[in-house]
Amino acid sequence: MKPSVAVVVLAAGASTRMKSALPKVLHPLAGWPMLRHVLESVMRLKPARIVGVIAEDAKEVAAAFAPHVTVVQHQPLGTGDAAKAALGSLKGHDGPVLVVYGDTPLITAATLRKLVEACHRDKAAVGVLGFKARDPSPYGRLVVRNGVLEKIVESKDADASEKKVDFCNSGVMCLQGTLAASLLGAIGNGNAKGEFYLTDTVAISRAAGHRAIAVEGDEAEFLGVNSRAELAIAERALQRRLRAAAMTAGVTMIDPETVWLSADTRLSADVTIEPNVRFGLSVTIESNAEIKAFCDIAGVRIGRGARVGPFARIRPGSDVAENVHIGNFVELKATKMRRGAKANHLAYLGDSDIGAASNIGAGTIAVNYDGYGKHRTVIGEEAFIGSNSSLVAPVRVGKGANVAAGSVITEDVPPNALALGRAKQVTKKGRAEPLRAKLKARAAEAKRTRK
Amino acid sequence: MKPSVAVVVLAAGASTRMKSALPKVLHPLAGWPMLRHVLESVMRLKPARIVGVIAEDAKEVAAAFAPHVTVVQHQPLGTGDAAKAALGSLKGHDGPVLVVYGDTPLITAATLRKLVEACHRDKAAVGVLGFKARDPSPYGRLVVRNGVLEKIVESKDADASEKKVDFCNSGVMCLQGTLAASLLGAIGNGNAKGEFYLTDTVAISRAAGHRAIAVEGDEAEFLGVNSRAELAIAERALQRRLRAAAMTAGVTMIDPETVWLSADTRLSADVTIEPNVRFGLSVTIESNAEIKAFCDIAGVRIGRGARVGPFARIRPGSDVAENVHIGNFVELKATKMRRGAKANHLAYLGDSDIGAASNIGAGTIAVNYDGYGKHRTVIGEEAFIGSNSSLVAPVRVGKGANVAAGSVITEDVPPNALALGRAKQVTKKGRAEPLRAKLKARAAEAKRTRK
Amino acid sequence: MKPSVAVVVLAAGASTRMKSALPKVLHPLAGWPMLRHVLESVMRLKPARIVGVIAEDAKEVAAAFAPHVTVVQHQPLGTGDAAKAALGSLKGHDGPVLVVYGDTPLITAATLRKLVEACHRDKAAVGVLGFKARDPSPYGRLVVRNGVLEKIVESKDADASEKKVDFCNSGVMCLQGTLAASLLGAIGNGNAKGEFYLTDTVAISRAAGHRAIAVEGDEAEFLGVNSRAELAIAERALQRRLRAAAMTAGVTMIDPETVWLSADTRLSADVTIEPNVRFGLSVTIESNAEIKAFCDIAGVRIGRGARVGPFARIRPGSDVAENVHIGNFVELKATKMRRGAKANHLAYLGDSDIGAASNIGAGTIAVNYDGYGKHRTVIGEEAFIGSNSSLVAPVRVGKGANVAAGSVITEDVPPNALALGRAKQVTKKGRAEPLRAKLKARAAEAKRTRK
Repeated sequence: MKPSVAVVVLAAGASTRMKSALPKVLHPLAGWPMLRHVLESVMRLKPARIVGVIAEDAKEVAAAFAPHVTVVQHQPLGTGDAAKAALGSLKGHDGPVLVVYGDTPLITAATLRKLVEACHRDKAAVGVLGFKARDPSPYGRLVVRNGVLEKIVESKDADASEKKVDFCNSGVMCLQGTLAASLLGAIGNGNAKGEFYLTDTVAISRAAGHRAIAVEGDEAEFLGVNSRAELAIAERALQRRLRAAAMTAGVTMIDPETVWLSADTRLSADVTIEPNVRFGLSVTIESNAEIKAFCDIAGVRIGRGARVGPFARIRPGSDVAENVHIGNFVELKATKMRRGAKANHLAYLGDSDIGAASNIGAGTIAVNYDGYGKHRTVIGEEAFIGSNSSLVAPVRVGKGANVAAGSVITEDVPPNALALGRAKQVTKKGRAEPLRAKLKARAAEAKRTRK
Repeated sequence: MKPSVAVVVLAAGASTRMKSALPKVLHPLAGWPMLRHVLESVMRLKPARIVGVIAEDAKEVAAAFAPHVTVVQHQPLGTGDAAKAALGSLKGHDGPVLVVYGDTPLITAATLRKLVEACHRDKAAVGVLGFKARDPSPYGRLVVRNGVLEKIVESKDADASEKKVDFCNSGVMCLQGTLAASLLGAIGNGNAKGEFYLTDTVAISRAAGHRAIAVEGDEAEFLGVNSRAELAIAERALQRRLRAAAMTAGVTMIDPETVWLSADTRLSADVTIEPNVRFGLSVTIESNAEIKAFCDIAGVRIGRGARVGPFARIRPGSDVAENVHIGNFVELKATKMRRGAKANHLAYLGDSDIGAASNIGAGTIAVNYDGYGKHRTVIGEEAFIGSNSSLVAPVRVGKGANVAAGSVITEDVPPNALALGRAKQVTKKGRAEPLRAKLKARAAEAKRTRK
Repeated sequence: MKPSVAVVVLAAGASTRMKSALPKVLHPLAGWPMLRHVLESVMRLKPARIVGVIAEDAKEVAAAFAPHVTVVQHQPLGTGDAAKAALGSLKGHDGPVLVVYGDTPLITAATLRKLVEACHRDKAAVGVLGFKARDPSPYGRLVVRNGVLEKIVESKDADASEKKVDFCNSGVMCLQGTLAASLLGAIGNGNAKGEFYLTDTVAISRAAGHRAIAVEGDEAEFLGVNSRAELAIAERALQRRLRAAAMTAGVTMIDPETVWLSADTRLSADVTIEPNVRFGLSVTIESNAEIKAFCDIAGVRIGRGARVGPFARIRPGSDVAENVHIGNFVELKATKMRRGAKANHLAYLGDSDIGAASNIGAGTIAVNYDGYGKHRTVIGEEAFIGSNSSLVAPVRVGKGANVAAGSVITEDVPPNALALGRAKQVTKKGRAEPLRAKLKARAAEAKRTRK
């Protein structure tokens, strides 16, 4: 049986170029903090333990690692020093130790697994993930001969032939567990910056007669995020990955580049998504549902055959059942729309439960907030809520009831009742002209005063 | 006189990779089913007849071909077999026979015409459309010498020198009408898959001493759609074509990549379109109209100098005359806005006719639906509809009439009349404080109960 | 001391390919007329004077140059003729004369300064800005030897070795002031088109024993705009420049390609901008403010920690203070939202002043327009405006006052008062069923009549 892996996640780096009060690894990508993407990939290896290495006072980062343990790297003395900080938490573990980075969020479990398995198979003391770089110039080069990683040469130290090597160091490493402490302990800081470099473990292990290897992954997975511009590039790469997966599963996107998914968005086959749709966290959409242009949707299940948008906003805690229609300029918040219910135009439905086949008229507001508490509006099946109505919650409208347009409903409406809460129309013949004259005079007067 | 062409459109292919209940050739591109794009290109050749080849039970596809005839290919035995299925419907036609594909929607009439004319001029038995491929590796190569197409070599069968050929087979072919039956009849299925390949007609005709030729088209026109991802690529290519044509005609698009046109959108010179505008079918926009950001517009003529958006939704059956203003969060449906009328903020106007120079206040709703029927709202010239009014249709508001803000209008308002349908304000001094205390207590109680 | 520069801006070119009634140099980019971008770059050199060269009857262009002088080029006889037209306005100036183009809006001050300084240092009679072209074929080539610009060869006149030169002529030139008149005066029109070419000054000055030099700039800065498509390309390039600068300053953009900035947009560090946000002119956003998806924002300061959108529209003259929330389908126009005020759903607030910590309910309309004049709505601190209310301006609602949902408020509400302007609810049991029957019958009748 292969021994299970321990994972050290380095997340102590500063983030000055982000110009942010928020720690770098907590900046979100596809709705999740960057670090969570790394942890999700790592978790798929079913590791024996995960140890986060964080900077001092990085409580928010420690919280993002929970329930995994974190250790503090007290000073920024390099990756070797950071990895060493984790040694105390690795006691008793003699399987492989994988070292990954909190700011390299696109790494996949498959690539990590490939590294761990190669190290196991080749009995390597150290394994390094490398990639064929389109432009290798900024990276350390991996010099491999006969399947052995001979050395890692920093870009500035590379000679002419080494400069031609396009196989580059990602920094992700796997150390043999029984050797991890001695390898990390042997790293020195006799270099220009006085830092301890994790990459030195390659030379150290080779000097001790151990084997080092390099395993190739895709360059895109190793994108490190150090600035807002790189954050945007990572987001773009991740979105493309998520969109491609959705299309492969049978989703139509008219313009995929304008559909923003969250890491956990679930879309069924034959869902159609028009341009410019943003999915926040926790969205599930069932087949044949249609999301029209310009929608912002989060925290909802949308049932088969439902039609949403354009210009719809759905906020968390909602449920949109089969064949429901949600139209333009409609907002749902914590609202359940039952089968076939419709709210097609300009409406706010908050904390509501709308019965099957009910119709919510244009301009309807579920008045859920009184300044202190939120209250529920419950509407029965096949009810008809007239346009521009206000439903002052808590309030119930019974099955088959009818609310007249423009009503303010403050009391429950029994099933099959008709409720009105509006004034009768009064029409005053010939009175528009004098009113206009008055308003015109007022406007003229105001203009004069302003001068 | 050149003999007129018959066109065979192959549309019997399965669409498993689309993962869709909808037949592949009916998936829309720029608002039209993919197949319609092919038919529109083909129609511009003024063909003597068009024959669709469809799979069994593909009633929807047959309907999309109407009024053109369709024949059924009973089993998926290759393109040669599919083309042969059309022979019965080609009886009596002895002009050229063009074979195109229902899932290659970007082909243009100009390129097809070029092929047909070259075949006519060169007296070719078979003509093939080819393209210079950026990456030729997946395609069959067209081996041409001295203006003669010597053979088509499948990629896997190509020798070293043939592999270097970047002139590739699109599959689109033109057969000499008098030879079509014999050429198609001679195709065998002695190959690995046991299928009949249309491309074999090249070898067959050459063996019989006839001439075969290849004609070059642009690679972009031959994009075949077999997956949602390819559908998105085709949509993107088509949108770019449509946008470029609009800009050449004098339309300003601030960010063309975020303007989605339909195949039939008509835009005049000096129309300005801000980012993020989606045009559904049947839109015509006249000069100097301005479409601001975030609009979704379908089925409407928009007149000279009109201003629409941002955040406007116009649905089919509408007409927006000269100098009309439609503002944010406003929806029109089957509504006529006459010259200079304005609806600038949050309004739903459905089944309405709004008189010239009238002003529709913010929050106005034309209550067109009573749960069973749709009714019309007709407003005369220079009327003023106060904000948050509900116009309960059927209803008429006369010329120069004034509806007070917040009114529910259920009866016609004569010209020049003032109509009110709202309660008088009652102000209770010092009563907000006790109300707040009550609401606060209710909220606290609710919180306690929840625990 | 270096002599200060005079700048001649050539803006007399026709714009037939734009197909526009608006002069080419007035077409906007990032919210400013193209010409203004050129003028802003030029102004950073603190020039002694600026002279615009315009076509006859180009009053709008002259106005865009104000307060700088303009001279008219009476006939389109080439760039040399245009520059000569400025000579009269350069009298008394003997510093360098920089010639730039009104339709080359991406030129930066840094590049212009580099040219002027190089000319000064090298005592050049003529200096030309050149660029390394990705595809040099359409451009004149700059033949430079030993730091001297030997000649400019038009693309069509280039010999084989000159065709290989990728250093191309941008057209931007700097003439030594004391020689400008004689150099320009010596340009002839003995060429195919009979035009006077500014580039001839290189040969003329060399023939007279003066020095000519070429200075390199980035190709992107020399993009000329002659069509709507090129206008869109320039807009894209400019947007990318503006977005990159914002990200470097610490702004997060989830998808930068969908954020449209104006030339004067000011964004602080730790501002987050979701996809699809458009900024019009005069926007300042302070740190920790969050602009959610689908917003259209102009003419406003947005304070620290404010949350705006999704689907918010803010129009000029507004001010959104710290921690204000503006939610979906809400429009502000010339409205001040004070600290912590909220308008979260479907509302129009025009010409309003909303007190700190006040809450504006869903569907609220500030009725600011009566058909003739605009009036103000002033709401005190901690007021609560119930949903679907209409506030008929001019009107004041006092501190801590409460307006009941669905009210039409036409009179001032004192502090702490409760105001209602709505009808009491009437509920008619069992009356929905007969109403439905009546409506159903009406719909059936209407259907019958239509047939």
